[in-house]
Amino acid sequence: MTPGPGVRRTALPKGFLASGINCGVRRYRPDMGMIISSVPAVAAGVFTLNECRAAPVRYTQKLLPADNIRAILTNSGQANAATGDEGIEKNLMMMSAAAKALGCDLNQVLVASTGKIGEQLDTGKILPCMPELVSRANEHAESFATAILTTDLVPKTVTSQVTLSSGTIRITGIGKGSGMIHPNMATMLGYILTDAVITKEHAAEVIKKSSDVSFNMISVDGDTSTNDCCFIMANGASGVALLNDQDVKKFEAVVEDIAIFLAKSIAADGEGASKLIEVNIKNSDDLALAKKAARGVTLSPLIKTAIHGEDPNWGRILARLGAEGIPAEQLDRMTLKLQGVLLFEKGQPVKFVKEEVKALLKQANVKMDINLNSGKFSATAWGCDLSKKYVEINTEYC
Amino acid sequence: MTPGPGVRRTALPKGFLASGINCGVRRYRPDMGMIISSVPAVAAGVFTLNECRAAPVRYTQKLLPADNIRAILTNSGQANAATGDEGIEKNLMMMSAAAKALGCDLNQVLVASTGKIGEQLDTGKILPCMPELVSRANEHAESFATAILTTDLVPKTVTSQVTLSSGTIRITGIGKGSGMIHPNMATMLGYILTDAVITKEHAAEVIKKSSDVSFNMISVDGDTSTNDCCFIMANGASGVALLNDQDVKKFEAVVEDIAIFLAKSIAADGEGASKLIEVNIKNSDDLALAKKAARGVTLSPLIKTAIHGEDPNWGRILARLGAEGIPAEQLDRMTLKLQGVLLFEKGQPVKFVKEEVKALLKQANVKMDINLNSGKFSATAWGCDLSKKYVEINTEYC
Repeated sequence: MTPGPGVRRTALPKGFLASGINCGVRRYRPDMGMIISSVPAVAAGVFTLNECRAAPVRYTQKLLPADNIRAILTNSGQANAATGDEGIEKNLMMMSAAAKALGCDLNQVLVASTGKIGEQLDTGKILPCMPELVSRANEHAESFATAILTTDLVPKTVTSQVTLSSGTIRITGIGKGSGMIHPNMATMLGYILTDAVITKEHAAEVIKKSSDVSFNMISVDGDTSTNDCCFIMANGASGVALLNDQDVKKFEAVVEDIAIFLAKSIAADGEGASKLIEVNIKNSDDLALAKKAARGVTLSPLIKTAIHGEDPNWGRILARLGAEGIPAEQLDRMTLKLQGVLLFEKGQPVKFVKEEVKALLKQANVKMDINLNSGKFSATAWGCDLSKKYVEINTEYC
Repeated sequence: MTPGPGVRRTALPKGFLASGINCGVRRYRPDMGMIISSVPAVAAGVFTLNECRAAPVRYTQKLLPADNIRAILTNSGQANAATGDEGIEKNLMMMSAAAKALGCDLNQVLVASTGKIGEQLDTGKILPCMPELVSRANEHAESFATAILTTDLVPKTVTSQVTLSSGTIRITGIGKGSGMIHPNMATMLGYILTDAVITKEHAAEVIKKSSDVSFNMISVDGDTSTNDCCFIMANGASGVALLNDQDVKKFEAVVEDIAIFLAKSIAADGEGASKLIEVNIKNSDDLALAKKAARGVTLSPLIKTAIHGEDPNWGRILARLGAEGIPAEQLDRMTLKLQGVLLFEKGQPVKFVKEEVKALLKQANVKMDINLNSGKFSATAWGCDLSKKYVEINTEYC
């Protein structure tokens, strides 16, 4: 799967509905979304490691993992971060209104928020919209996926049917965000929904594992949000359980694919971005370092601007790998390919036709392959180029 | 001291001469510089931690600390990094030519290089220029300070006379660089010269200590160069030694001031920069974390673009501090001031007149004061704003 605009109509798994409406916090755009399961569902999540965590993140973290969840509410426009005790109270008011509209208990509804930091929730507009949010829910992902956007250019949705040994299940993913984007706007959000029968322990494990190789390997600007959340929700509505190792493997592989698809979509839609950058580090003897170095390359403003300028500037890549701590003796036996063209081998620059590589860099997907020839670990990270548009968006907002 | 263009004529300490000439590697600009001591001098240095270290860095590191150094050669235009065995050989050829022109031993000359990565030294042009480089040396810092520039807009020099208990000494600083700037151009370089009598052990200690609070606390783009070097050279030509604790304290304080002046000059001259950003973290209970967080704020593209847009966007600062790991309970008792105006206190946003703070942000020096109210450690870091010009310089180079 390669990132691109979400398909027009993305089916939700059985027993799921979703909605998105405008409650008036933002002028015209939808600003409130809800995912609803018709029956109590297993749910788990991973959350920002930022010490400055928004009220909704603190609230939701305490509830998970769980096996009684009916809905995930998400508002956009106000992050409810750095809002003190008032923020915690207003979040609770919002959650109570949502539970009431759904006819369920308070602890059956999760929440994520994205938007401006330091602004109190406009509960005067938010609370009255809950019944409409519930009544408008439908079987497709688009209305929800659109309501949670901030500066994203496209909604991000993906769905896949998976045939397991005792039947077919569906897994649907919805994502949002491209780093900390609008000035005070923050957040990447991910939702993976399935009608498979799984335990909450397995849900917690699979969301952690899949996030580690997807959402945790993307970067737009290196600024970790106060509001990042990624959820998995499994309502068992298909009646299909994972009966054996092969089922588990298949299920986890598709969840991972969906998470990577969403993560790449987020990176490709980074603000001002014109190119998705993929950095593959192979044959490292240190997995943690390989991950760190791959992410480091996607963070480098010098590499990001070079790629924006379609400049095969391998020296910047080498310098960043060294700065991230790839040992000198490994750099000496490294090979580096850009768009498949060998630029550096065994500590020495390789002669190449610059115009040829520049032409290949015109593509929307840019791939860097780094082989350290030192071990068996691999890591892949994704990012985007850095353009004047990024500076414009973040400078001229207010 | 606040950064600004170097004064017109910066005196070198007694017994030092410096020069800068064009040897033809660059078209018109001077590209080769030398600092010469008339007598063997004590010297020490600190060097890039990048695993991808240039040939001149590897060469010079092995020689230091020492007490027999006669000169520091510096070429600009070619970094001699990622140049393999040929780079090591060509560096040695250059050093031999320099020692011959100076009439001293090979191991009495140090070297630093800055410029394009991956290009071999043009020894055909470099070697013949050595006699001229020696013969043109004079008692001021400017010709050398200019020869080592790459994309810097101004040469960076500073000098100070210090009265110690047994007489007067001079300390002169010369700096270069603003991150990894031109596409393949790298490097910050620092040179602190004095005619005081000190040991090589003390030289090594003082350059480490002063770099830790100056050069190691600046960032333009977060990309660590392959060629960073910072030297101290003390030739004892004043005949004045440090006789007591007070002398030592005074000497070290001036070296630190000079290092900070040069570091701030480098940050203020960051490519595309229009503002110097100073981040002060006070009353932390963890010095390493305070340093990391202060540097983190100067690295954030979101904060850098906000400052460029003169936008008092405190939410981004808070979010970055949390992302760097400042504990939530400390953020809850933190105060944050921007240009002296209180914006955030005890976990809550403070009402302020936005237009007033915007007006204060028009100044060339922007100051963020963060009081964590949690301990006794302080840290200061410096950076610069992020403009479209940065993207332009790094995108459109080739």
